[in-house]
Formats: sequence, structure tokens, C-alpha cells
Amino acid sequence: MKKIGKQTVSFDNPPTILECSSIVGPKEAQGPLAKYFDQTLEDEFYGEKTWEKAESKILKENINLLVAKSGIPFDKIDCIFAGDLLNQCISSSFGLRDSNIPFFGIFGACSTFVEGLCLGSICAESFAENVLCATSSHFCSAEKQFRFPLELGNQRTPTSQWTVTGSGAAMLSRSGSGPYITNITIGKIVDLGIKDANNMGAAMAPAFADTLISHFVDTGRSPNYYDLIISGDLGYVGKDIAIDIAKSQGYNIKSNYNDCGVLIFDKEKQDTHSGGSGCACIGTVFSGYLFKELKSRKVKKILLIATGALMNSTSSQQGESIPGIAHAVSIEI
Amino acid sequence: MKKIGKQTVSFDNPPTILECSSIVGPKEAQGPLAKYFDQTLEDEFYGEKTWEKAESKILKENINLLVAKSGIPFDKIDCIFAGDLLNQCISSSFGLRDSNIPFFGIFGACSTFVEGLCLGSICAESFAENVLCATSSHFCSAEKQFRFPLELGNQRTPTSQWTVTGSGAAMLSRSGSGPYITNITIGKIVDLGIKDANNMGAAMAPAFADTLISHFVDTGRSPNYYDLIISGDLGYVGKDIAIDIAKSQGYNIKSNYNDCGVLIFDKEKQDTHSGGSGCACIGTVFSGYLFKELKSRKVKKILLIATGALMNSTSSQQGESIPGIAHAVSIEI
Repeated sequence: MKKIGKQTVSFDNPPTILECSSIVGPKEAQGPLAKYFDQTLEDEFYGEKTWEKAESKILKENINLLVAKSGIPFDKIDCIFAGDLLNQCISSSFGLRDSNIPFFGIFGACSTFVEGLCLGSICAESFAENVLCATSSHFCSAEKQFRFPLELGNQRTPTSQWTVTGSGAAMLSRSGSGPYITNITIGKIVDLGIKDANNMGAAMAPAFADTLISHFVDTGRSPNYYDLIISGDLGYVGKDIAIDIAKSQGYNIKSNYNDCGVLIFDKEKQDTHSGGSGCACIGTVFSGYLFKELKSRKVKKILLIATGALMNSTSSQQGESIPGIAHAVSIEI
Repeated sequence: MKKIGKQTVSFDNPPTILECSSIVGPKEAQGPLAKYFDQTLEDEFYGEKTWEKAESKILKENINLLVAKSGIPFDKIDCIFAGDLLNQCISSSFGLRDSNIPFFGIFGACSTFVEGLCLGSICAESFAENVLCATSSHFCSAEKQFRFPLELGNQRTPTSQWTVTGSGAAMLSRSGSGPYITNITIGKIVDLGIKDANNMGAAMAPAFADTLISHFVDTGRSPNYYDLIISGDLGYVGKDIAIDIAKSQGYNIKSNYNDCGVLIFDKEKQDTHSGGSGCACIGTVFSGYLFKELKSRKVKKILLIATGALMNSTSSQQGESIPGIAHAVSIEI
């Protein structure tokens, strides 16, 4: 592999995304992408006593599913990259504690899934045969931790987003017939001073645009190189801002750009305001839907950019703004 | 690089640790290693209004220090790995938001510093010229978040440890005259069922022993290959357990093994019970003290193993045990 430009790494022997798996919650199971997910849950507890334990179980079962689907047994996985939104990433550590696989914990908020694909690709080209990348999020555990107790029934603002309940996971392999991860563009932290913790789309859109444009500058590509440009969870509000920022910098992405937070819920029938969010938003939409579109060659080139808001509830209470980040991978078949 | 054994990666062109920097708080400044740190603080606030903002500032200023000491300017750093103990790793994201460097957030609790060295080494051998690895922790922000309000003045148990206030940072470079990172051993999650959140040493010691022995098995080395074997923050309690577990598996490490949590505070004069802990414990002891010992060739071969407890306060309240992890790097000159 070699570095090209300032933030991009290009692979000489691009790793294959061998297989993906996804589990989603009951609300996602009523959305427009329901048929693409491997498993849908009937309720938010999944047989557990707490939402946190349910989220760990979702991640754990999703990884078991991926191992079964890919045919790569646990002892052939060289390492795993995983992270989530819970404090100290406990969904990942509890979900993986019986896996017996060398483990790298990562945190990039909702950018974690693509952060894992970036680091996993570096490992797959340099020393590993197989690398597993996984994330999870859970509407109830996230609301409880970042906002208000669900029992309060607080009103949600028009710009707020709905954390996706679920887990997405991908098995990267040194050898395989694609889709391939051909480039990664590593994001920088971008903070334009947005302080509204109920408007994550606006906080993260500048980081998306920064990585998007860095990717084009580094690779010499333009938006129309890709069949699809996909962001993680900017939602309706952030998506519009992202299009505007890109346009102001000379990049027109309107015709081939969409957002996983927009795709996963039905705007009319499901009351999620600005759309979906969370580590599992791009995780499940990619693992469930987009990966199948690539495998069937309905789309051949995707630029997948996951965005994350790097704040917590204490930083908001202390009056801080919300730093954003976005990591990108080019996926081609 | 190539994988050797089950968990170890061996480098063909081992990256150099070009330079290190460290800032510590007032209590660490009264400890036995005080003279080795680059900067010591007079109080826990560092001119900020909150402990969280102080911790971010410590990380930020430590990175500025490392850039100055190493002579590698920000725009020549290919990427940075950083993480900390605060919820959603805000010390790192706020501390680095103005740095303009491609950023990978990582979380391995107190193992984060060595997790960064592992991933940073992989990047330095495969595509990067310079990689920065940093961590921070802060006694007051950690107590507030994980245990009780400091104002309560709660009694501490004999097995409890004192979170180090400070930041350690290392600049890895593809080229240089050493000390070199020659191997990394990536840890697995190990959970033997310890539930006492005031006895982290006992919770993490099995993970330390697991990685230690995996390293010896993978590399064919024995304990006496190293001048020093160093753990992150097992403290007095965990150190004794670690020696016992290793001995029960046929590895005698008693003569050349020590722990950063034991080294950083004075047992008699500083009332820290089982010793130091936190992401900054091994971060500052390595960056301040051990790196200088290597550069002056007083020691030539160190096996540095950082341990982490992958829990949060919610998991303890829900009756969960504490999963541990440990990552190792061989450092030789």
C-alpha cells in the first residue's frame, strides 16, 4: 500500500469484503430496507434484562452469524476491530469477551464502522488473512445515556435523529473476488462550532465534506467516478447541508449521493424526524443492503463515508461545541 | 511484516520510537519518577474550569511538546492514534480538534497507549512516515465518572488504585536509530469473573498473563530475553497475582518484571493503596522514564504490556464481571 495525497492510502492488493451480516431492531424491521437484513428482532430486549445487555447480545449474535455465513471460523480470524456508542464501548467488549480473537477497540462515534474498515484493510494487506469489523448501537441505551430517560416521553426536536438498533459486521480477507476496498481516506477532526446536541447532522456535515473533498483531491477522482456516494447518518438535515458545502467547494454530488439515515426509515410512515443515526446505521445499511447491491453488480463503485460526533453529555453540559469526524473507503467490484 | 504464531506480528523494518513527551499532575510530581517528566502541573485544573477541560488541555499541550521535541511538524504526521478513559474519549477528540491530523480514535481502557503503539507500528511499516500515539487520564475526572463525587471524600479500599493525571505521547517513525518496536502481540479479551470494581489489578492480571505467555509462545522467547518486562497498571495487588499466574504456567518473571502503577508513586509516602492506574500511567512512565533508559542504553530490551479493564459504571451496576485486555510491544535498541 502507499499513501497518496495528504489523507488517503491506496492498496496494491486491495482486500476483499468477503461477507457481511446484520441484525436490526423492531423499528428498522418495519422500514424500507427490512428485507435485506439477516435477522430482525421482535422487541428491544432480545431476551435480556437491560438494553445494554441486549445491545451486547446483538453484536455477539451478529458476529456468530458472520462467522457462519463467511465460512471463516473464529480461529482463522487474525483480529477484530469493534466499537460502539456506549460509555467505554461496553457493547463491544462484553459482546466479544468469549470470542477469543485478538481485539482492537476503536471509537469514532457513528464513524466507527468505516474506521474499522480502514484499519482492517491496512491489516489485511499487511499481515492478516482475515479481519472482522463490527459495530452496534441501540435506540434505548443511546437515549438513556445521551439524552433523557425514555420513560419521560420527552418531545424530540425536528432536527433530531433516531439511533438505529442493530449491528453490522464485515469480514475482510486478503484474498477473494471482491468487492474490494481500493482506497481509504482517514478523516481529521472538524469543529465549526455547532453546539446543538439535537442537531448531529449539522455538526457532522462539515467533517463529511472535508473528507469527501480530501478524497477527491488525493485520488484525482471526481464525484461521477462513483455510482454511489453514501454518508453514514447525516439525516435529512445534514444531507442537505453536505450537498450545499460540497457545491460551494465545486463538487456537485446531488445526483449520486444518499445517506444511510435517510435510507433506513420511511419518512412518511415512521416518525424519526431527520432520519436514522448511530454506529449501526451505516453498519446495517452497508452490511444488509449496499453489500448485496455490490455483490449483484447493481452498483460497482461506492464511496462510503461514515460520520461521527465526538462529544458526550458532559461536554455539552459544559457548553462545548461538537467536533465531527468522517472516514471514507472506496469499495469497487 | 508477518504474523508469527497466533497473536504476534513481527516487523521486517521495525519502526523507531523517535521521541516521547510527558506531562503529569501535582501528585505524580511528588513521586519517585518526577525528574523524568517533561512538565509537571501545580494543580489539577491547569487553568481550566473543569477537570475534563484540564485533561483535554494536558493531552493537547503534550502533543505540542512532542512536535517541538521531535522536530516533526504537524503536517508531516501521517496519522494519530489516541484515546482516553472519559466517556466517548472526549479528552482525545477535544484535545486534538485543532491539530488537523488524520485521526483514529481507539479505546482499550488503560491498555490504550500500547494499543496505539501496536496500530501505529503497523501503519509506520506499511504506509506512514510518522505516526503519533497519545493517551491521557486524570484522577479527578476518572473518580467523578467511574466512582463517587470527590467532594464526598469516600474511603478507598486497600485494593483500589490512583488514576494518574497526565499524558504520555510517542512519535513513531519509519526511519531512525531506535529504540525499535520489533514485535507486537495483540491481546484477547479475558474475563475470569472478577466483579470488584475497586480491584482492577485482579481483574486485569489474567489478561496480562495471557498476552505475556502468548508472546513467549509466538516468538519462542523466554522471560530472560528481556531486560525488563513492564505491565501498565496492575498495581501491587495485580503484580503479585500476575507473577503467580505466570509461574503456574511455567514462566518465572519475578526478577525482571515491574509495573508502572508500582513505579510512579512512593508506597510509603504517597497514599495510593495498590498504586497508580489509568491510560496515563504506562503512558507517562514509558514516555518519561523508560524511553530515556532505552535511549541511554541502560536497558536494551523491554517487553511493554499495557492492561485495560473494559467495563463502565453501568455494567458494574448491572452485576457484570470485568473483562480485561492486554496488548504488548517488544522494544529493543
